[in-house]
Amino acid sequence: MSDKLKEACGVFGIYNPQKDAALGRNIFYGLYALQHRGQESAGIAVTSGSGIKYHKAMGLVSEVFNDEILDELSGHIGVGHVRYSTTEANTLINSQPLVVRYKKGSLAVVHNGNLVNSQELRRELEERGVAFQTEIDSEVVAFLIAQEHSEDIIKAAEICMEKIKGSYALVIMTEDTLIGMRDPHGIRPLCLGKQNDSYILTSESCALDTIDAKFIRDVEPGEIIVINKDGVKSIKKNKDNSSSALCIFEFVYFARPDSTIDGSNVHMARWEAGKLLAKEHPVEADLVIGVPDSGTVSAMGYAEAAGIPFGIGLIKNRYVGRTFIKATQSSREIGVKLKLNAVKEAVRGKRLIMVDDSIVRGTTSGLIVKVLKEAGAKEVHVRVSSPPVMHSCYFGIDTSTHKELIGAQRKIEEIRQYIGADSLGYLSLDGLMKATGFSGERFCTGCFSGAYPIEVPREGKRYVFEKR
Amino acid sequence: MSDKLKEACGVFGIYNPQKDAALGRNIFYGLYALQHRGQESAGIAVTSGSGIKYHKAMGLVSEVFNDEILDELSGHIGVGHVRYSTTEANTLINSQPLVVRYKKGSLAVVHNGNLVNSQELRRELEERGVAFQTEIDSEVVAFLIAQEHSEDIIKAAEICMEKIKGSYALVIMTEDTLIGMRDPHGIRPLCLGKQNDSYILTSESCALDTIDAKFIRDVEPGEIIVINKDGVKSIKKNKDNSSSALCIFEFVYFARPDSTIDGSNVHMARWEAGKLLAKEHPVEADLVIGVPDSGTVSAMGYAEAAGIPFGIGLIKNRYVGRTFIKATQSSREIGVKLKLNAVKEAVRGKRLIMVDDSIVRGTTSGLIVKVLKEAGAKEVHVRVSSPPVMHSCYFGIDTSTHKELIGAQRKIEEIRQYIGADSLGYLSLDGLMKATGFSGERFCTGCFSGAYPIEVPREGKRYVFEKR
Amino acid sequence: MSDKLKEACGVFGIYNPQKDAALGRNIFYGLYALQHRGQESAGIAVTSGSGIKYHKAMGLVSEVFNDEILDELSGHIGVGHVRYSTTEANTLINSQPLVVRYKKGSLAVVHNGNLVNSQELRRELEERGVAFQTEIDSEVVAFLIAQEHSEDIIKAAEICMEKIKGSYALVIMTEDTLIGMRDPHGIRPLCLGKQNDSYILTSESCALDTIDAKFIRDVEPGEIIVINKDGVKSIKKNKDNSSSALCIFEFVYFARPDSTIDGSNVHMARWEAGKLLAKEHPVEADLVIGVPDSGTVSAMGYAEAAGIPFGIGLIKNRYVGRTFIKATQSSREIGVKLKLNAVKEAVRGKRLIMVDDSIVRGTTSGLIVKVLKEAGAKEVHVRVSSPPVMHSCYFGIDTSTHKELIGAQRKIEEIRQYIGADSLGYLSLDGLMKATGFSGERFCTGCFSGAYPIEVPREGKRYVFEKR
Amino acid sequence: MSDKLKEACGVFGIYNPQKDAALGRNIFYGLYALQHRGQESAGIAVTSGSGIKYHKAMGLVSEVFNDEILDELSGHIGVGHVRYSTTEANTLINSQPLVVRYKKGSLAVVHNGNLVNSQELRRELEERGVAFQTEIDSEVVAFLIAQEHSEDIIKAAEICMEKIKGSYALVIMTEDTLIGMRDPHGIRPLCLGKQNDSYILTSESCALDTIDAKFIRDVEPGEIIVINKDGVKSIKKNKDNSSSALCIFEFVYFARPDSTIDGSNVHMARWEAGKLLAKEHPVEADLVIGVPDSGTVSAMGYAEAAGIPFGIGLIKNRYVGRTFIKATQSSREIGVKLKLNAVKEAVRGKRLIMVDDSIVRGTTSGLIVKVLKEAGAKEVHVRVSSPPVMHSCYFGIDTSTHKELIGAQRKIEEIRQYIGADSLGYLSLDGLMKATGFSGERFCTGCFSGAYPIEVPREGKRYVFEKR
Repeated sequence: MSDKLKEACGVFGIYNPQKDAALGRNIFYGLYALQHRGQESAGIAVTSGSGIKYHKAMGLVSEVFNDEILDELSGHIGVGHVRYSTTEANTLINSQPLVVRYKKGSLAVVHNGNLVNSQELRRELEERGVAFQTEIDSEVVAFLIAQEHSEDIIKAAEICMEKIKGSYALVIMTEDTLIGMRDPHGIRPLCLGKQNDSYILTSESCALDTIDAKFIRDVEPGEIIVINKDGVKSIKKNKDNSSSALCIFEFVYFARPDSTIDGSNVHMARWEAGKLLAKEHPVEADLVIGVPDSGTVSAMGYAEAAGIPFGIGLIKNRYVGRTFIKATQSSREIGVKLKLNAVKEAVRGKRLIMVDDSIVRGTTSGLIVKVLKEAGAKEVHVRVSSPPVMHSCYFGIDTSTHKELIGAQRKIEEIRQYIGADSLGYLSLDGLMKATGFSGERFCTGCFSGAYPIEVPREGKRYVFEKR
Repeated sequence: MSDKLKEACGVFGIYNPQKDAALGRNIFYGLYALQHRGQESAGIAVTSGSGIKYHKAMGLVSEVFNDEILDELSGHIGVGHVRYSTTEANTLINSQPLVVRYKKGSLAVVHNGNLVNSQELRRELEERGVAFQTEIDSEVVAFLIAQEHSEDIIKAAEICMEKIKGSYALVIMTEDTLIGMRDPHGIRPLCLGKQNDSYILTSESCALDTIDAKFIRDVEPGEIIVINKDGVKSIKKNKDNSSSALCIFEFVYFARPDSTIDGSNVHMARWEAGKLLAKEHPVEADLVIGVPDSGTVSAMGYAEAAGIPFGIGLIKNRYVGRTFIKATQSSREIGVKLKLNAVKEAVRGKRLIMVDDSIVRGTTSGLIVKVLKEAGAKEVHVRVSSPPVMHSCYFGIDTSTHKELIGAQRKIEEIRQYIGADSLGYLSLDGLMKATGFSGERFCTGCFSGAYPIEVPREGKRYVFEKR
Repeated sequence: MSDKLKEACGVFGIYNPQKDAALGRNIFYGLYALQHRGQESAGIAVTSGSGIKYHKAMGLVSEVFNDEILDELSGHIGVGHVRYSTTEANTLINSQPLVVRYKKGSLAVVHNGNLVNSQELRRELEERGVAFQTEIDSEVVAFLIAQEHSEDIIKAAEICMEKIKGSYALVIMTEDTLIGMRDPHGIRPLCLGKQNDSYILTSESCALDTIDAKFIRDVEPGEIIVINKDGVKSIKKNKDNSSSALCIFEFVYFARPDSTIDGSNVHMARWEAGKLLAKEHPVEADLVIGVPDSGTVSAMGYAEAAGIPFGIGLIKNRYVGRTFIKATQSSREIGVKLKLNAVKEAVRGKRLIMVDDSIVRGTTSGLIVKVLKEAGAKEVHVRVSSPPVMHSCYFGIDTSTHKELIGAQRKIEEIRQYIGADSLGYLSLDGLMKATGFSGERFCTGCFSGAYPIEVPREGKRYVFEKR
Repeated sequence: MSDKLKEACGVFGIYNPQKDAALGRNIFYGLYALQHRGQESAGIAVTSGSGIKYHKAMGLVSEVFNDEILDELSGHIGVGHVRYSTTEANTLINSQPLVVRYKKGSLAVVHNGNLVNSQELRRELEERGVAFQTEIDSEVVAFLIAQEHSEDIIKAAEICMEKIKGSYALVIMTEDTLIGMRDPHGIRPLCLGKQNDSYILTSESCALDTIDAKFIRDVEPGEIIVINKDGVKSIKKNKDNSSSALCIFEFVYFARPDSTIDGSNVHMARWEAGKLLAKEHPVEADLVIGVPDSGTVSAMGYAEAAGIPFGIGLIKNRYVGRTFIKATQSSREIGVKLKLNAVKEAVRGKRLIMVDDSIVRGTTSGLIVKVLKEAGAKEVHVRVSSPPVMHSCYFGIDTSTHKELIGAQRKIEEIRQYIGADSLGYLSLDGLMKATGFSGERFCTGCFSGAYPIEVPREGKRYVFEKR
């Protein structure tokens, strides 16, 4: 995918039986591995048993923290977060972890996902006299816990889970307990790991690898994991996982390839998707290339299945960062050229199959086709390792943005013309699901199919398909 | 005073019948004039009738805001704040205005003062399920309003005033109303002004002058001022002001000399204090000098009353800022030398009377006496235009800091020896009160007398006498 | 003076027989004391006998250096500089010290003043194949030394002095020698001090006081001071000082009051100027006030001589910094109001004498008179403790700026009307010179008289009378 | 290569017949494409015919420039530079372009390479009275031009070329002319392009692609290209290119794969190197993987030639930036883990061939082998697509660093043991040269062979093999 979806968060929590001087550093490394899930702000909160210290700021993990700050973040329990934040002013206010003091002490919450009933919950809490200082779901969760926590934090977590609707991978920390909660559909990933005597809850298994922790298992849909001095406890009301609806876009684009989610490795799924794509949309060609970085693996799978050589036709500039260049007529085009360049010697005179992971707006895809043709490609056959994005994410999408979804606005032949490809083929939804090795019922495929696991709100919220 | 008290805040609020593009800029100018009341953070919140926009950050008013930000802060109601914050991490979280969303809409609170029952109120609110994100009293006030605001914001303000104990000059803003509240003892100053059709509530009258607003009157102790589309309304339960207890340190050091508080001009009071000091502690000398800046005016008053010439014996470096120089044995001494230098030609061979506004720890005073003697002064007679600071402020003071109060630890003769003065005289409390032109009962004189207008908490809070 | 002259520099040099870990810190303190001579950039260069280390950056001394940097700046010889730089891009390139490597090793130069023949010297050096990287006179000096230094650095300094024309207080450092040079007219101040075994060369004596160094003597006009392992050596071709032409504006505004220049204390000279002003321009009045800070002392002298009470009528906001507020019609007016406010209670109903050190453009003076009248002053009689600024400084002044010199454009009665004063009186040039205690021939009075000690270039250079 | 060589620079120059408002932006895009050649500082200088404006600062191209700065950089001729600078203080001083004013006007110089006789040239120029302000070769070049430019800039360039020895791709700009110079051995690349009416000189052809410019040809070894209003002129004393000695490391690691240097595409050369490596060092295995990013292409070539599947076994964290984490025992290991993670599902149980572009110190290679084995790889056969780095670069290398060259210190079997590989094979030098398609005489292979095209200085200079 060259037009990107903005995924909103990565979460990390760790419980260490003893106070650990390197706790903050450990969380830092974990967040480093989750950086692809959010680059706008980062934060870490820790406790040594009394009160919670935290640091959060706008920027990359490597920019937000330094040794001096990490040295301060010792403790025995901690949580961390990376986030893509929306454009409102005072975004630091909206960064996570959210830390509050309430009747039972201190509490920190980190969240990946989107609550569809957060407005109702806010109104309900407001009626009880609660006042909100941020716009984030973590505040709703923290306030629910504060309201419901009478004796047992576990009870409060259970009530919280009953009330909140939507997607969530939540990690909650009190002064003595670390809690993980995954929504009943398991839309967002959350897994459990172990590093020596410490337990870890985090969005993706790649964060475990980075700190040499062992993967234990995925947290199940609807499961609450409670970690404290008595060890790890699991609470799960609904014993069957039949309502499981993991976001399929984690496999398409969000997750890091070296992560394994609910038993399926992301890299292998993408490779497989490429192979199935080759079967669904074969075409005669000389070379298969991928749009770096996310299209590369599927391109390799395609090449293997098609028996056509795989090659590198596009070079990505590794230094393209958060630059803002004045908008000019040609600015989108120069943007693509700064990011990607063709290897003329590799593509000249060739019939190419160009594999991308998805197409959102189509503008970038068109520009890449143009770059390849200018570099001498004889034909460019575009193959996409996922179906057309035709619907709002159940998290909500602006009408204006919906209008920009080329898959929602145009037919496939029209898209082909728009992007200037010689042919265009999308992987079927069945194929995509099959690539993961799961049965189809396991997924939320809303953005492709329009079918959502839970009722979708009318008005959209802030998580929209946006152009990176 | 060369050893300084850190005053915690300046507040500013404005109500404009129409939306004003320059609203933020107007508040900015007002905060500029209040900068002496707090240099650590600054913030402005505005509304155009729906929602509240705000910007706050660490730093001076001139550093926190720029034209781009101020242009965004248009509206018809706004509040602003300058603050000295304590050293906890995440101090931005503790900066003001505090902005919340609650059942009736949006609310912003700015506060100068210290609630002595904030811990009780926090516990009480926590029992009701409220969770706190900051350590500031403004959050307590905002949450009380959020809890109590059922129909009428005025009612909520009244209930709030019944509940909170301590000192406060509060300005509260909803989407359609600006409210000012001054504690029943009027410990912190708050005044009302008018600029064309706009009404202003602010800590000191100097902020009105800066924006060409007219001073209307001081808000009375225990008074609530409500400004909305129906005009200005005053609510006051207790009609007499017999319990008035304005902080006398506003006149000694806190307030700007061009401000007039509760009818008495700060500059004139300081001048008068100097005159009375001359009568109480006369001494034969050749020249009266002040410790700049705050001792200068009293020195002039002293000189006039004593019939001894006033002169400038010490030059202050205008560029001494927030520098942090490595602590070395001599660092305090070099600190004084960077800040103050003697005019040798003016003091050489002279018997000097050196007037300062107060002595907190005594270290700096001793160093200044040393500087003057090294510059050739024959005698240095120290005169202080306020009594010895002997007690914690009713806002609370650390034991360790209490130990550093030289007035609490040593007799006057011991202090004289400690600072190396040839004689030492403090203005009496009666004299100080007389200088203001008020009757003595008007003041809180706790730091001098140990008598506080309201019950003082055992354990101290964060507002302590600190060294600047 | 409320309309300010921008003075361009402060210089500092130190020679320590042994390597001193605190050398950089010592220079830092000295520059701190010279900060009023330039706030745009600061720099320090040091040597331990082989090579020169340096650090320079834009900003105040306290912003440019920190403990980590100062710890690096150990050595036995060092120079420092504070500068007001013009607005060209890449101003860091133009900051000082200028450090070069040449055939005899390393060299650092700091300069206060303006060479009138720098363009000729540059052209001459260019003809010899030299290429320039900056626009500053220090580079010309460094390159002259580099060209002329064959055996003896002293010889090279002498040749340099023969070639450069204009004003200069220069401090030059090689890897083993510290050299001070003051121009033959002594236009810019330079003095010699001693701190234990170290010798110091610096612009003003206040820098010596700050580091507890003893003032030895002023460097004489046309004198070269050479300090190395053999001690201090003086070279002076022209033994008489008859051509002495110290810039009289050092006494009017530039220098710090606690400095003593060529034997006359700045503070005392300003006081005396006030007394003489009272004799030259008496007027019946109730109160004498000064425009802070630079008018205060002369106001006190005026009051003493006139037998009229001195008071404080204007309060200066100590936090007015380098703020840039969008230019609006009223921006200059709000600028004055942010900076100065009247003490209404002190001026109401009074006939005031308002003393300022100088008037450059007149705009600010007019606004201050307005502020005082609005505060209730019955009459405002403006007295200026220097003559009208009528001529370009010999350093050159833009025609456009010359047009803005109200003293050059209008008669005194016109100026009075322009600023709205009830009467206006300037101190005579004779009076000003008398106030310093020197005979008149000692000064460059070009800006007042149009008579310059050396031939003035036609085209102006960058040092102009500018509005602060 | 996971242990990296630090390449020093990228250069860019453009000549436009007319003044172009977007000139700076054009150069900015070009530098963006050259960012891989240096990330420490960036700079652009432009002229509109009179004087030169420039901006340079530490940081990435995207950090150094913004729209406001680029808007200022209009003109008709311009040069730009990206640089890796050494760690001396004041590195901004050492950044490029170097801009000087000399007898013929203004001059800007940008340089990629290393002059081996720069110390001699500096001493020679110093004897002529020149003083140096930087440590960079560009200053030597600028001063030579300044000395030698009497009538014709071309003549001066020719004399300059006669004097300087070493490697250089130089772009020099006067107020009316753009000059490119490539050293007689063509060690560093430099090519000529055309964009509409503009001519461009730049290090790599990828910079031409980014701005849609056409590649015309490589500048020849020993050629001077002069571009002015009369068009493009070539000067070349030595007509044959027999002494050509292009740095072979440009193909191994330095250059971007989409660049074509002296007729050979970098990407294709790396692919071919992989194929030849497979022939030279075959081994039975299940999967070929590359060390991203630079080992990937050769791995693909190896796989193709060996008939073994190519796969992705290592995932690189795209957000690893310039982080500095406290040195701990395990810091190098965590550093590798933050950067690279194995795809367990892809490598588990497999016999792997892991291809890297080079091995410098061996530490990182060993850690990657460990990561793969921990992820379940049965065997790891390391293949390197270049010979062992056994000698200092002719640019000079510290003895200490030379000691760290594992290829210089250990035999291949020892290296294999050190990195824990099951087998280890390096591509032969013949193979590497053959991969480029050139005859062997075309290259400088000093770091592999110890044979340098020009006499190598005894003492090293600053360009050393360093760890990224």
